[in-house]
Amino acid sequence: MKVAKFGGSSVANAEQLKKVANIIRNDSERKAIVVSAPGKRFSDDTKITDKLIEIGEAYVENKSYAEPLQFVLDRFQEIATELNISNQIVAEVREDIECTLQSSDSDALKLDAIKAVGENSSAKVLSAYLQSIEVHASYLNPKDAGIFVSDSPGGAQVLDESYDHLLKIREHKGIVVIPGFFGYSKDGKLITFSRGGSDITGSIVAAGLQADLYENFTDVDSVFCVNPTIVDQPKEITSLTYKEMRELSYAGFGVFHDEALIPAFKADIPVCIKNTNNPEGMGTIIVSQKEPQPNPVVGIASDTGFISIYVSKYLMNRELGFGRKLLTILEDEDISFEHTPSGIDDLSVIIRESRLTKEKEERVIARIKEELDPDTIYVERDLALIMVVGEGMDSTVGLADKATHAFTRADVNIEMMNQGSSEVSMMFGIKSDKVDAAVRSLYQAFFEEN
Amino acid sequence: MKVAKFGGSSVANAEQLKKVANIIRNDSERKAIVVSAPGKRFSDDTKITDKLIEIGEAYVENKSYAEPLQFVLDRFQEIATELNISNQIVAEVREDIECTLQSSDSDALKLDAIKAVGENSSAKVLSAYLQSIEVHASYLNPKDAGIFVSDSPGGAQVLDESYDHLLKIREHKGIVVIPGFFGYSKDGKLITFSRGGSDITGSIVAAGLQADLYENFTDVDSVFCVNPTIVDQPKEITSLTYKEMRELSYAGFGVFHDEALIPAFKADIPVCIKNTNNPEGMGTIIVSQKEPQPNPVVGIASDTGFISIYVSKYLMNRELGFGRKLLTILEDEDISFEHTPSGIDDLSVIIRESRLTKEKEERVIARIKEELDPDTIYVERDLALIMVVGEGMDSTVGLADKATHAFTRADVNIEMMNQGSSEVSMMFGIKSDKVDAAVRSLYQAFFEEN
Repeated sequence: MKVAKFGGSSVANAEQLKKVANIIRNDSERKAIVVSAPGKRFSDDTKITDKLIEIGEAYVENKSYAEPLQFVLDRFQEIATELNISNQIVAEVREDIECTLQSSDSDALKLDAIKAVGENSSAKVLSAYLQSIEVHASYLNPKDAGIFVSDSPGGAQVLDESYDHLLKIREHKGIVVIPGFFGYSKDGKLITFSRGGSDITGSIVAAGLQADLYENFTDVDSVFCVNPTIVDQPKEITSLTYKEMRELSYAGFGVFHDEALIPAFKADIPVCIKNTNNPEGMGTIIVSQKEPQPNPVVGIASDTGFISIYVSKYLMNRELGFGRKLLTILEDEDISFEHTPSGIDDLSVIIRESRLTKEKEERVIARIKEELDPDTIYVERDLALIMVVGEGMDSTVGLADKATHAFTRADVNIEMMNQGSSEVSMMFGIKSDKVDAAVRSLYQAFFEEN
Repeated sequence: MKVAKFGGSSVANAEQLKKVANIIRNDSERKAIVVSAPGKRFSDDTKITDKLIEIGEAYVENKSYAEPLQFVLDRFQEIATELNISNQIVAEVREDIECTLQSSDSDALKLDAIKAVGENSSAKVLSAYLQSIEVHASYLNPKDAGIFVSDSPGGAQVLDESYDHLLKIREHKGIVVIPGFFGYSKDGKLITFSRGGSDITGSIVAAGLQADLYENFTDVDSVFCVNPTIVDQPKEITSLTYKEMRELSYAGFGVFHDEALIPAFKADIPVCIKNTNNPEGMGTIIVSQKEPQPNPVVGIASDTGFISIYVSKYLMNRELGFGRKLLTILEDEDISFEHTPSGIDDLSVIIRESRLTKEKEERVIARIKEELDPDTIYVERDLALIMVVGEGMDSTVGLADKATHAFTRADVNIEMMNQGSSEVSMMFGIKSDKVDAAVRSLYQAFFEEN
C-alpha cells in the first residue's frame, strides 16, 4: 500500500490534475492521496495559498478582499470547467471563506482556516474528478481522518493518537483524497502546519497507514546532487538516506520539507520523490540504510547568510563551563546556533544571520564581554556553509583531502572546518562571494573525475 | 633588564650550577634569577622534589622517612662540597624539613612546605656560590619578595598585589636569587603552585619587574616543531607567538608550563627558551606578534588519550538548548571538554580520558539518554588529536588541503576535523595507533617539501 502526495504544481490546473488521476489509476497500491493547494501554472503565476493569505490579511486590516477572492474563485471555476465536473466547488470555496471570516474565532484561527481552503478545495476537486472518470475515490476531511494536532496556529504538531485513527483508513473502500497542510485541535479548531506542510500531512498519513512507500510527487525528476543553479545539469541522486537528505536540505536543498521526513523516518517508511510530469522516471528514494558505495559522497549543499561570533580567551580551555555559559547567553535570547568549531583558547559560534536582530546581537556581545571576560570578541559576516554529504564517509580515507583540494583549486580560503565522528557530512565555512566557485570545484572533484 | 629562570637539570649538580653562574655573569641585564629544585643528573636519576614528596607522604602515613631524607641531604652535601661553599646549607635543609614536620600545620600545608625545600635550598646554594665567585648576589625569599598567593595548597594562584611588591626588586643592589614554585598566603603560610611551578614564579617575577625579557633556561636548544620522539632531529622553532605556544603545549609539547605563560603574556614580555648547556644558541623566542611567514605553520603537536561522546538526534538542530544541556551535564560532573565538532543532527564531545572515571562516564551517558532522548549515543575510544599550529594560517589558501593530503598519504582516516575562524590551529582526530604515521607525514608536508 502506498501513500502519494501531489504538490502545488501537480494540481495547478486541469491538465496537471489529469496527469495526477492517471498516476493514481495506474497503480492500485495507491490508497491514500494527499494534495497541496493549486500552485503556479507558469513561473510568474501566483499560488492560491498566497491569495488566500491576502484575503485573510485584508480582512484583519479591514480592507477589501474582493480582488484576491475573485482570483481564487476564478481559478477553481477554470479547473472545474476544464475537468468537466460540477462547479459546486466554486460556491463551496466562497462559502468556506465567508463563513470563516464571519465566525467568532480569533484572527489567528481565521487566518489558518482561510489558508487551508486551497488544500481542502483541491482535495474535493480531485475526488470529484476521479469519481467522474469512474475511479472509486472519496474526499476525506482531516477531522474525519483523525489528524489531531497541537493548538498552535501556523505551527501544528501532530498528536500521537492520530496514527491510530489513520490506520482505520485501510478499511475504507476505494481511494481516499485528503487535503494536506492542516489538522484539527482536540476542541475542533482547524490548525495548519508550517508553510509547505502538505509534505508533513503526507508523511503522517503514510506513517498512520503503515504504508510500504510514501510517494512525493513534485515537478522535478529527482533530487540533484548539487544546486542546479550553480552547476548546469548536475547528476541525479537515485537513493539516499534520511540522514543524508536532512544534511542536504539543511543547507540549501529545498526539495523536501525538513520536518516532513520525521513521521516517515520514525515509521521507517521509504520516501520516493517523483515527477508528476514524468512518472515513469526513477525518481529519488529516501531510505534508512543503504549499501556502501564506492563514492560515498551523495551531494554537496551550500547556503549563505551565516555569521560567526568569535571569542578567544587565554586558557579558556581550563575554564570549566565557558562553552556552556556562552550557549546559555544565546539560549536566553532564543538564538539557535549551527556549529561551534573551536581551537584551544577560542570558540566560534556559527549562527544564521536571520536568527539575529541588531539589538539581539548587541545584547549577546555585551553579555559575553561582561560575563565571560574574553580577550577578543568579534563578529565575522557574509559567511557561507558548504556541506559535503554522504553516509559511509567515515570509513573512506582521503575524502577530506579531496574536498580541501577542491577549495585550493578554486583559490578559496577555508575559514572554518567541522566534522564530527559520525561523518555523514563535512562542513566548510567560507566567504559568501566564493560559494559558487567552491561548489563547482567540489562537484568536479566528487562527481566528474574518475 | 632580564629575568632568568633555570630548570631542574640546570641546577642538578655543581657542574651545571657553574654553567648557570657563568650565564648570569655574562650579561649584566640579568637582574633576577629564579631556580627550580635540583633535577636529574642522568636519565635514571631521581629529582629532589620527588624525594621530598616521599618524605612528606611517609611522615603523614607514620612511616620512616630516613632514606629519602638522607638522599636529599647527600645531594646538597655533594653540591656544596664540589662548589666549595659552606656546608651550612645541609644543616638548613635538615632543619627546614624537621621544623615543618613538627609544626602544627595541616598535612596539606606541611606537604607544600616540604615540597618547596628543594627550590628554596637551590636558591640559597646558587646565591652562596655566586657570592663565592664575587658576583654581587643575594638570596630572596618569596615572602620578602612579596609573592602572595591564594590559600590553595598545591594550586596557588598569584594575587595581583604581588606585582607591585616585585617592582621594588628593581631597587635592590646586585642580583637576587629567588626560589621558584611557591609563594605565601596573606596569613603567612607557604603555598606551592602546581607541579612545574618554577616557570610560573619566573613569569610572575618577570611581569612584576617589568622585565624586557624572561629567559627560561632548560636542557634543550629550542622548541622543536614536532615531537622529536616521533620525527628524528626535527627543525627548531626560532620564534612563535603565545597563542601558538599555547596550542602546541596543549597537545603534547611539554617544554613549558602552560599556566606559566599567562603573567608574561598579560605584561607582554617576550619569553626566551634557551639551553644552559649551549647558552650561545639562538633558542626559541615567544612573542605576542610576529611578522607573517611564507609557511605559516610553526609546529605539529599530537596527544593521545582522548575519547569522543557521539550523540545524534533527528532535528537536533531545531532543539534550542540541546548543546547547552549536554554541556551542563558534563559541567555538573566537573568534566571539561576539548572540542565539540558537529553535523546538523549530531554532536561529538571530545574529552581527555583522564578526566572521566568509569562511574562518571556511566552517569553522563545515563543522563544524556534520559534528559536529551537522543536517537544514538556511543563512546569512541583510543582517539588522538593532532594540531597543526600557526598564526597567519587564516590568510593562506591550501593549508587544509596540504594537511589532509598528508593523512591520505599515510593512509590514515580522519575521524574528526575542527577549525574555528581564528585559524591558529587545525585539529584532526584520528585513531591513536595511527598518530606517529600521521605526524611524520604532516612533518614531511609542512617542513620538508619545498
